[in-house]
Amino acid sequence: MNQKLKIGIVGMGNVGIHFLQRLIELGHTHLTVYSRSGNNLPASMNAKDVQFTNDFKEFIDFDIVFCAVNDNTMVEMVRLVSKYAPVVSVSGTVNLNHLKTKYPIGTFYPLQSFKADQSILWKGLPLFIEAADPKFKAFLMQLGHEFSENAIELSEDKRQYLHVAAVFANNFTNHIIDLAAHYCEEHGIQFDWLKPLINQTMEKIQSNNPHDILTGPAVRNDQSTIQKHLELLKPDQKTIYQTLTKSIIKHYK
Amino acid sequence: MNQKLKIGIVGMGNVGIHFLQRLIELGHTHLTVYSRSGNNLPASMNAKDVQFTNDFKEFIDFDIVFCAVNDNTMVEMVRLVSKYAPVVSVSGTVNLNHLKTKYPIGTFYPLQSFKADQSILWKGLPLFIEAADPKFKAFLMQLGHEFSENAIELSEDKRQYLHVAAVFANNFTNHIIDLAAHYCEEHGIQFDWLKPLINQTMEKIQSNNPHDILTGPAVRNDQSTIQKHLELLKPDQKTIYQTLTKSIIKHYK
Repeated sequence: MNQKLKIGIVGMGNVGIHFLQRLIELGHTHLTVYSRSGNNLPASMNAKDVQFTNDFKEFIDFDIVFCAVNDNTMVEMVRLVSKYAPVVSVSGTVNLNHLKTKYPIGTFYPLQSFKADQSILWKGLPLFIEAADPKFKAFLMQLGHEFSENAIELSEDKRQYLHVAAVFANNFTNHIIDLAAHYCEEHGIQFDWLKPLINQTMEKIQSNNPHDILTGPAVRNDQSTIQKHLELLKPDQKTIYQTLTKSIIKHYK
Repeated sequence: MNQKLKIGIVGMGNVGIHFLQRLIELGHTHLTVYSRSGNNLPASMNAKDVQFTNDFKEFIDFDIVFCAVNDNTMVEMVRLVSKYAPVVSVSGTVNLNHLKTKYPIGTFYPLQSFKADQSILWKGLPLFIEAADPKFKAFLMQLGHEFSENAIELSEDKRQYLHVAAVFANNFTNHIIDLAAHYCEEHGIQFDWLKPLINQTMEKIQSNNPHDILTGPAVRNDQSTIQKHLELLKPDQKTIYQTLTKSIIKHYK
């Protein structure tokens, strides 16, 4: 990859910071950041070559601008920046196909959950690419490969479905484990005791169909245990237990 | 540990087989199995020293009998076997404290999900021990330490709560990942693409409070994305999405 590329990043939130960090790691030196929050980068970042701007016009003749703003403002921002340079949205949910722009636009969506203070394992991370312009798409695929070695072309429609699936597999599982941790705390038992069990199940999911490895009272439709459990739950917890138990019983009929 | 111990196992289901396997690995040679399904052990098992019986009386003078039968028949089976030898239930939900028995009884509960054809990583696996008889309890703690190096004394009450927490953290997460996999299949996207995301989140949970690492539309109360997602779901999927999204919003208020 040509490290002389002129690259812009709009937005220095959780996602923008990780993109900037990755571009620095990859040896890019022509990096310009546009951020409402000013020039505050994490102290740990080797950002000596990073320029700042508060004028989109400075992106003129840039090879690409990564737009890492909130979903709510993404379309408007892509529209604005695309007057001056090719631009990609990094969002899994935002649709751009309806936009008519001067410079090519596209999507460059890493399927990962970003927090500013947590490192990202880029290698192997699936990066989903879309662009109407064939040359720009080829450039994005090449850049995606550089980022993670796992760039995948995916249409807008399918990206929407992927994002929904990710909410289930990532956010909802995370929340349910959080509920379990709360429940442990409420009842004076250690959440740590559950970790080997969680680990083993997640390891099994790597190489088995998740449908085939489920155990527990619901999959056995063991109503006696289910009733006992319901008596040990508060109303909100009970709602979740019942909803998921009902769903499991239905799926294993 | 004294490998001359006389050890019985009642039941050769998913759990009984793994207990037998572990006892063989640990070098025990006086092993006797009582099983309705007869003498059929997995061919891979080095079971040359294993005896079979169909009479509980043969357990007389045994040091311990592991009772690995269904929860429904556990209490009755423990009652029967305890006429001849000390016996433990391996269940997380069954209560035995009300039983009056000739020989000591107790619980020896490994917090893990067992399938006959999948190996178990015993080392570090939390094993929960309970027994009213102090000598028997000390013996169980020692045996538990031999099994996994992680034997923990836990009362009946707390074991019930632990089992409920495990249903959330293990069964429900597994099912939700299964729903995500189904959804991917329905919409022509690859479930494998989600695995790096799942892995990274589960890795974060090892050393972070699960409450602090949640991302996604629900924790941001991003109603625009939530509404878009609901339109992409079938009624059953929608129920789960709504229930969990509501729960997340409530927990992060």
